[in-house]
Amino acid sequence: MRKVFLQGYGTALPKQTVHFGKQTRYRISPDENQLDLAVQAARNALTNAKMTVEDIDCIVSASAVGIQPIPCTAALIHEQLAKGTDIPALDINTTCTSFITALDLISYPLVAGRYHNILIVSSEVGSLALNPKQKESFELFSDGAAAMIFGQRQDSQSGIIDSIQKTWSEGAHATEIRAGLSAVHPKTYSEVTKEEFMFDMKGKQILSLSVKKLPQLFHHFLTKNGMTAADLDFVIPHQASRAMPLVMEKLGIKPQQFIDLISEYGNMVSASVPFAFCQALRKKRIQKGDKVLLMGTAAGLTTNMLLLQL
Amino acid sequence: MRKVFLQGYGTALPKQTVHFGKQTRYRISPDENQLDLAVQAARNALTNAKMTVEDIDCIVSASAVGIQPIPCTAALIHEQLAKGTDIPALDINTTCTSFITALDLISYPLVAGRYHNILIVSSEVGSLALNPKQKESFELFSDGAAAMIFGQRQDSQSGIIDSIQKTWSEGAHATEIRAGLSAVHPKTYSEVTKEEFMFDMKGKQILSLSVKKLPQLFHHFLTKNGMTAADLDFVIPHQASRAMPLVMEKLGIKPQQFIDLISEYGNMVSASVPFAFCQALRKKRIQKGDKVLLMGTAAGLTTNMLLLQL
Repeated sequence: MRKVFLQGYGTALPKQTVHFGKQTRYRISPDENQLDLAVQAARNALTNAKMTVEDIDCIVSASAVGIQPIPCTAALIHEQLAKGTDIPALDINTTCTSFITALDLISYPLVAGRYHNILIVSSEVGSLALNPKQKESFELFSDGAAAMIFGQRQDSQSGIIDSIQKTWSEGAHATEIRAGLSAVHPKTYSEVTKEEFMFDMKGKQILSLSVKKLPQLFHHFLTKNGMTAADLDFVIPHQASRAMPLVMEKLGIKPQQFIDLISEYGNMVSASVPFAFCQALRKKRIQKGDKVLLMGTAAGLTTNMLLLQL
Repeated sequence: MRKVFLQGYGTALPKQTVHFGKQTRYRISPDENQLDLAVQAARNALTNAKMTVEDIDCIVSASAVGIQPIPCTAALIHEQLAKGTDIPALDINTTCTSFITALDLISYPLVAGRYHNILIVSSEVGSLALNPKQKESFELFSDGAAAMIFGQRQDSQSGIIDSIQKTWSEGAHATEIRAGLSAVHPKTYSEVTKEEFMFDMKGKQILSLSVKKLPQLFHHFLTKNGMTAADLDFVIPHQASRAMPLVMEKLGIKPQQFIDLISEYGNMVSASVPFAFCQALRKKRIQKGDKVLLMGTAAGLTTNMLLLQL
């Protein structure tokens, strides 16, 4: 077990909501931006942990889409939160599962004693890139941010029991924003090309690939850890779409075993998993000692599973 | 010592060069792109290592600027190189020092046995975003890619002796591409705003901050490892600018101790460090058993140092 433990958590949401039927989505106003959300979530996490930024020795931004092409998003968060310090800042990205990948990866230097308290921030403002013509994604995404602080202690009962990541690039183009970086430069933006700069999600393709690949990986992962789905105290899935509960059912996870925030909050891309994690903690649906599985599929197609003893 | 060892390396360059006085720069033609360079470098590294992609169990893209906003760059490299496999793919980004950060970070799960052979690919086509009005950066950058494969073996004499990363966000705006992602969406691109989508480097500010911060960190890092600059067999610095040799001199590193490719190849952003590493290996300026320091400053301002016993 990688003996890391949760020290604090926080979230941030835009002021404005929009509604599609009974679905609520959070969308930034012109006076809000990704950096504000990221910094607010991070400050809330520090407050919740009763820490100041000086207690942190690594700042990780784990978001799908960054704030600027250069520098990395973590450096811009650092500027708001930690200017004057020399805390290292870096970005880790696997799109929607960036938070899980970041926690997974950074737990190794954490338990090795390289870092002692790490702050992971996921922030997204996907609403800027939604295509009104693609109802499925246009009505699904929310903006938001979540931050969590993890520490390390040898005598901790908490920790990462196991984790796994797989990428199946058959799905590399199932979720995309194709234009905006080096493949298609912003200088080509026009009324004709503008949809290339927008979110494009082939929901059926993702669901079909996920349903084909996930059950096997899920059962392999549980078996490897001597568990069945019933042994999981709680599951925090990426809030991918309204089909998520069906995927959970297919995996043998009961409704009371997982958190479903799709109607209330939609899909916040990378911020979904930590946001749902924070909500589960706030609502005391999980508590100390629980075995909690973070899992999700991301553009790539990438899947992460991380089993945490809280 | 984190017992990782180099298994293979490869580079890729665009066909076309441009010249500024005696300075040679590599720039992609319309029929070349970042993905091609990344994949070519990765294939060359696999060949050099006498491996196939099935031997790799983690693909890391360590680039400053990605190919698409979604998915992450590693997933797109995966599609070209490893489609049909389930090798995990992820991006790690600290701009110019992304390669060092990636090697540093991923070495922990590598030595923990989570991964066995990891491929790190850095690729950049900065030429797409250069501002002809800013001579300093316009004449400095090259496009290119470099890939390296590292393995893990307990009985290895090779490994990472120590590493350090610091971010000083006083320099967060000293090197930027401000527009293109969430801070300034491509829809705002126009003749008036176009420079916001271009590279903007305040060379003097970077140099002044580096010269203020680097020597102290460098000596702290060496002292911590019971070394002086003279004990380093070789230094592979980020090929930041034509001022790089002056910084080396200030740190007490002799001309024969470091590799300087600025005139021949320019600054390839994240690809510079691994490209220079590959050149030093090819030219046999470093060999088995050598103590080699990888170091660089990146937008952020971030500094990385990683001491490797080859």
